[in-house]
Amino acid sequence: MAVPLLNCDMGESFGNWSLGMDDDVMPYVDCANIACGYHASDPHVMRRTVALASRHGVRIGAHPAYPDLMGFGRRSMACSPAEVEDMVLYQVGALSGICQAEGTAIRYVKPHGALYNDMARDPELLRAVMRAVQAFDANLPLMLMATADPEPSRRLAAEMGVTVWFETFADRAYDAKGHLVSRRLPGAVHHDQAVIVEQAVRLARGEPLRSAEGTELELPCDTLCVHGDNPESIAAVRAIREAFQALETT
Amino acid sequence: MAVPLLNCDMGESFGNWSLGMDDDVMPYVDCANIACGYHASDPHVMRRTVALASRHGVRIGAHPAYPDLMGFGRRSMACSPAEVEDMVLYQVGALSGICQAEGTAIRYVKPHGALYNDMARDPELLRAVMRAVQAFDANLPLMLMATADPEPSRRLAAEMGVTVWFETFADRAYDAKGHLVSRRLPGAVHHDQAVIVEQAVRLARGEPLRSAEGTELELPCDTLCVHGDNPESIAAVRAIREAFQALETT
Amino acid sequence: MAVPLLNCDMGESFGNWSLGMDDDVMPYVDCANIACGYHASDPHVMRRTVALASRHGVRIGAHPAYPDLMGFGRRSMACSPAEVEDMVLYQVGALSGICQAEGTAIRYVKPHGALYNDMARDPELLRAVMRAVQAFDANLPLMLMATADPEPSRRLAAEMGVTVWFETFADRAYDAKGHLVSRRLPGAVHHDQAVIVEQAVRLARGEPLRSAEGTELELPCDTLCVHGDNPESIAAVRAIREAFQALETT
Amino acid sequence: MAVPLLNCDMGESFGNWSLGMDDDVMPYVDCANIACGYHASDPHVMRRTVALASRHGVRIGAHPAYPDLMGFGRRSMACSPAEVEDMVLYQVGALSGICQAEGTAIRYVKPHGALYNDMARDPELLRAVMRAVQAFDANLPLMLMATADPEPSRRLAAEMGVTVWFETFADRAYDAKGHLVSRRLPGAVHHDQAVIVEQAVRLARGEPLRSAEGTELELPCDTLCVHGDNPESIAAVRAIREAFQALETT
Repeated sequence: MAVPLLNCDMGESFGNWSLGMDDDVMPYVDCANIACGYHASDPHVMRRTVALASRHGVRIGAHPAYPDLMGFGRRSMACSPAEVEDMVLYQVGALSGICQAEGTAIRYVKPHGALYNDMARDPELLRAVMRAVQAFDANLPLMLMATADPEPSRRLAAEMGVTVWFETFADRAYDAKGHLVSRRLPGAVHHDQAVIVEQAVRLARGEPLRSAEGTELELPCDTLCVHGDNPESIAAVRAIREAFQALETT
Repeated sequence: MAVPLLNCDMGESFGNWSLGMDDDVMPYVDCANIACGYHASDPHVMRRTVALASRHGVRIGAHPAYPDLMGFGRRSMACSPAEVEDMVLYQVGALSGICQAEGTAIRYVKPHGALYNDMARDPELLRAVMRAVQAFDANLPLMLMATADPEPSRRLAAEMGVTVWFETFADRAYDAKGHLVSRRLPGAVHHDQAVIVEQAVRLARGEPLRSAEGTELELPCDTLCVHGDNPESIAAVRAIREAFQALETT
Repeated sequence: MAVPLLNCDMGESFGNWSLGMDDDVMPYVDCANIACGYHASDPHVMRRTVALASRHGVRIGAHPAYPDLMGFGRRSMACSPAEVEDMVLYQVGALSGICQAEGTAIRYVKPHGALYNDMARDPELLRAVMRAVQAFDANLPLMLMATADPEPSRRLAAEMGVTVWFETFADRAYDAKGHLVSRRLPGAVHHDQAVIVEQAVRLARGEPLRSAEGTELELPCDTLCVHGDNPESIAAVRAIREAFQALETT
Repeated sequence: MAVPLLNCDMGESFGNWSLGMDDDVMPYVDCANIACGYHASDPHVMRRTVALASRHGVRIGAHPAYPDLMGFGRRSMACSPAEVEDMVLYQVGALSGICQAEGTAIRYVKPHGALYNDMARDPELLRAVMRAVQAFDANLPLMLMATADPEPSRRLAAEMGVTVWFETFADRAYDAKGHLVSRRLPGAVHHDQAVIVEQAVRLARGEPLRSAEGTELELPCDTLCVHGDNPESIAAVRAIREAFQALETT
């Protein structure tokens, strides 16, 4: 059977500051979400990260964000939809320029942090991001947070002429509507590797999860978000990769 | 006869700050050097400027710079050649992303301010910029400051696989080597429109100028830099355009 | 009788970009709200603006903002109260350093743009700004948007150990609760100088305004915000100043 | 005998990026050079670092830099002396604002990176920095790179009304003129802890070092620069501290 693509944030160093264990996690993922200079990264870090992904045959995705290095793109900013559209074009284009120099190309777009969350809540922002993706290259899929009811996003994507890939998390609890449980609540994040792998396999198989409220929850899952921050998260990625390899041969 | 292309810096507003009379000068130029966010501009200003150039059929050039909004890209910065290469790719790519959304494309590259001056002095920087242009799109000409001895730049360009366009100024005095006389010296800038137009016509015809030292100076001139800062400079652009139209019919 | 102080945003140029007619409006105001580098200005512009205010005997106020040059501090940003507290200290301190070099000192604090609006809505942000002012210098008044019910702010200020100055606008319509009518609605901004002066005089005298809903509205008014953007707004400032001088002699 | 003060760069994290082992090295130093937001740090990091230094009774120094986060303040920038003066005032003031909130104060100024090096080469830049320090608080010592001939700097400091503290390095080789040997040359950096401690003790005792050319070199040493980047450098700081404690009791 086909399994979801593993995607991971990469290239989030900046100038003299290092972040993430990109070299260690790159061999185990399918998709590298590469920061574009607005929440992290700079042209030199981008170049290095694109080259690294390219060497490993990993698909390169643009990871655009609000313009907020100090806040790492995690703060909502009241940008207008038209501003967001142009910011996404700018960042996707910038990464594309770096890719051209490395003989490769962007394969998808995944907005970062607060922009990713805001567009999941605000249809006008989502339309703005879709306009940017469609205008840049209508063949590039846009990653969106999966929810229990993906139909409205699918309809909007069809209307706007873009493809969406729904993204899920193996290490996070979901509520009954398919939203992530807030990190401030107990049980929001799974730390046990067995639990993480089991959730990943259920998502890959299209089997329902158990929501925080105890109900069954089905989520679309084109891609699974994994993390390369530290040795524990990388061990989890390897375990998911092994479990998926077993699935693929079934 | 063929006349040099008129190029002008554009899109140098930033957020709430306006600069330049782009709407007024756009009808009279051939090439718009559009700022890419490092010394001026932001994605929204870039979008508007690309659309304006596109409506007027003006060729769009990327105008990359050192990362220095506070200094408007006019301060030399000790960036390494490899950093400069990646900064140019980033900015050219970003503008290219905006162009794609407007159904147009970048046609040439002209570095801005201190980067433009530094690469004229430092062959390693010039090579770095050429590597970026070549890697992004080897068909894009790179604008370089004309000097009395263009052969070394021509040879380097041939070696690097890029095309160069030599740029001259109609409103600036030159020394015997074909370098601009420093603005700090008297007579460095021409203010009399008749003098400006005469120098433009001489450059277009390939006739020698009179250098500050009194010698004859021949300069290659593929393109002439003009300014849209104020009504006087725009009047000069119109006068040069009229003089060139007369030349073209001869 | 005592009249409200006239305060005006100043020093909002940045690097090569100019904004505002500071030289023209400075002679007519009491208080200069000087940008501190987060939404506008740079150290050089701050120095020049402090010197200008000082020459005119105008009180200098710090005008701190969210860190957003591209958005001119007009976009809400989801900064935590603790982050806002430290950002205010940073900016107030920076302006204070410039003031020391000019032999003068900060006399009050007025947050800018989205931060000003956000703290009027969110008591935790208001407390954070008050903590910063109190910690920096408890003698510095903090300007707050006046509303029909100033008591909660007064109580909070007393609890936090800071002084507040309520600010009103002569050129804006108010709703019945004493909030500014949104600029998107018709009639939100007064353009007729006679109307502006009349509203300023009513506010100075403590006389009620007519709200957008038609009710009577009393607002506390320690200071009145005026604008130095263009010749029309400066003419209005001069007219208010003259009206106030007449009041002062009564 | 009195020993030189140990100074160390601190507070060079930025937003989501961490740098330096401030908590580990703080107990062993006398002076914390705290970044002010231009090459590193943000208001929140500054607040935390000031509080940490304060708890340990370590003197707080302002560590101003060129405005270049991407380059960590290590790139020369062609800023004018007047711009540098105002940038230093801005940053010293900003840190001072944070200090006031923590009930402490700045005790000295040490420029960072490229600015530190440039002012050692360019007397106009050095004068500009001195003007800033003098204007902010003439009692604050300014740290300068020691050389074999400190008299010109001492005379300039006396003329400008500021105090200078000469700084040396225990882990770097010097040439015969008392300049640091370039890191690009072999032997430029000492890695052997015994060598580092011996050089520190010689500097503390006022004994001559052996220069790279083999000559004897005497350097003034008010303060010694140490590093908190990694466990090895912190071990060296502890060893220097122990050696100095032995000296102090002699």
